[in-house]
Amino acid sequence: MRDAERVVAELRARGELWEVAPGVTGLRGDALALQRAITHALATLDAGEGAEEWCVPPALALDTLARAEYFASFPQWLTVAAHLSEDAGELERVARSACPAEAARTAAAPASAALPPAVCYHVYAALADSTIPRCRVVGVQGTCWRHEGARLRPLARGWAFTMREVVCAGADADVAAFRDRGAVRALAFARSLGLRARLEAATDPFYAPTARGRALLQRVKGLKQELLLGVGAEELAASSFNLHERFFGDAFAIQLASGGAAATACVAHGVERWTLAVLAAHGCDRRGWPPIFTSLTREVAA
Amino acid sequence: MRDAERVVAELRARGELWEVAPGVTGLRGDALALQRAITHALATLDAGEGAEEWCVPPALALDTLARAEYFASFPQWLTVAAHLSEDAGELERVARSACPAEAARTAAAPASAALPPAVCYHVYAALADSTIPRCRVVGVQGTCWRHEGARLRPLARGWAFTMREVVCAGADADVAAFRDRGAVRALAFARSLGLRARLEAATDPFYAPTARGRALLQRVKGLKQELLLGVGAEELAASSFNLHERFFGDAFAIQLASGGAAATACVAHGVERWTLAVLAAHGCDRRGWPPIFTSLTREVAA
Repeated sequence: MRDAERVVAELRARGELWEVAPGVTGLRGDALALQRAITHALATLDAGEGAEEWCVPPALALDTLARAEYFASFPQWLTVAAHLSEDAGELERVARSACPAEAARTAAAPASAALPPAVCYHVYAALADSTIPRCRVVGVQGTCWRHEGARLRPLARGWAFTMREVVCAGADADVAAFRDRGAVRALAFARSLGLRARLEAATDPFYAPTARGRALLQRVKGLKQELLLGVGAEELAASSFNLHERFFGDAFAIQLASGGAAATACVAHGVERWTLAVLAAHGCDRRGWPPIFTSLTREVAA
Repeated sequence: MRDAERVVAELRARGELWEVAPGVTGLRGDALALQRAITHALATLDAGEGAEEWCVPPALALDTLARAEYFASFPQWLTVAAHLSEDAGELERVARSACPAEAARTAAAPASAALPPAVCYHVYAALADSTIPRCRVVGVQGTCWRHEGARLRPLARGWAFTMREVVCAGADADVAAFRDRGAVRALAFARSLGLRARLEAATDPFYAPTARGRALLQRVKGLKQELLLGVGAEELAASSFNLHERFFGDAFAIQLASGGAAATACVAHGVERWTLAVLAAHGCDRRGWPPIFTSLTREVAA
């Protein structure tokens, strides 16, 4: 089995992967056909849950993240979107600069939105301050941004990456059962692709100065499970299955018709990590891929 | 025929459109089904050109925009991506703030990438400093960002919006013929959807202090055509058909095997504006849509 570095080197040599900033990559050729097939398969994996599909905006209000206590939990990851200053003098300084790319780096106005660190925040924000008559299941997908500095690696840990999520809001027991079904399905799917895969209890990398203790609670209560896929000698968390109890239901005032805040859970798949795991296991040449990909890529092309 | 404001008001009332920041919107329900059908149709419209499909990165290097003289041409639109400062004290100030959303607005490190104002820049950058053996045609799609301040309107003029482009690099005559075929096809497609549509010579809104004169040259040489779709009493440029002569070939050193810089052209479709034009013409209730959408939405669902 290839490790992540060898897969990336092979893809670069084939002209199928390029990087425009650390952890910001493009794909083409066979690797892209594979990723589209995986994206399609992951998007239909949870079809039995009857999710409504939403096309979420590519940015989040900073206030939404504040309501979700994101700044206390993971500020180290956050990436914001800011347009250049509207000041005419400042714009002209950039436009006339001999090094405009460098000048532009520090010419932004204060940020007016966040680039989403996860797509499920859109769902809590859109359901905020409402009563849900029954269990609500929503499917979302989009580009997520988490800046992990020197740890960024193409496909394995992108600054920008593609996340597919299914979010469930409802009564505690329904939400817990949804989460467990998601984990079982993802594990079975990984094995059907011939991947080395296992589920493990996990915690989020909470920001220590302000969220100390949350990881411990998460582990004690079994709130987070990850699907680990083998990539060479390492294992990468390619999907996670998360119970939030009533955290988001309270924070966003999402009420059950029967009274009380809704519980929520989400099943999240990291598309590029799935692609990487398949390439590591089966190689970069499509002729080596298991037969299941022949039908998957055909389905997407149709 | 409805105008843009009425369409947006109806979509909001139906719960099918929401806005998280000015010009940053999400879609669901019938409007989303329609937009997916349009996206699919636009992506296959130029299939006869035999484009390779690329999945482009969600950000651009600032240096790529400098090479394309973007900062002299359109600095007023530019949106950048910046992660929060890596300084521990600064992060902790945000994390502990009583108003962390406000604190985060000014806590970003210098920007390290641009959010793409158009997806075709990725193609010039990826072909840079190479010789192309024959005419090269590439299909790309992605979220683009253009900050137009007070002019932003949901669907009609998004800060973030979806652009589908086909880019051609090659000899002058091949590239010009590609551009003309694209315009003819898009006009025919618009009319097949029952839209009021016409082609018109156009110019880009170049930044006056540093790109004065470029719009005039563009018009004199007939380099830019737009497809205008009727939306109520107004007309919106939903697609554009652009000849760049050897501007990008020179700037990015893209050479023809026969010698000299490649000419380039691009055909660009603004997905949300197409959606808006169809909703304005045929209403927000799918039962009013022309039969072509029944087959289009079925194709996408399959």
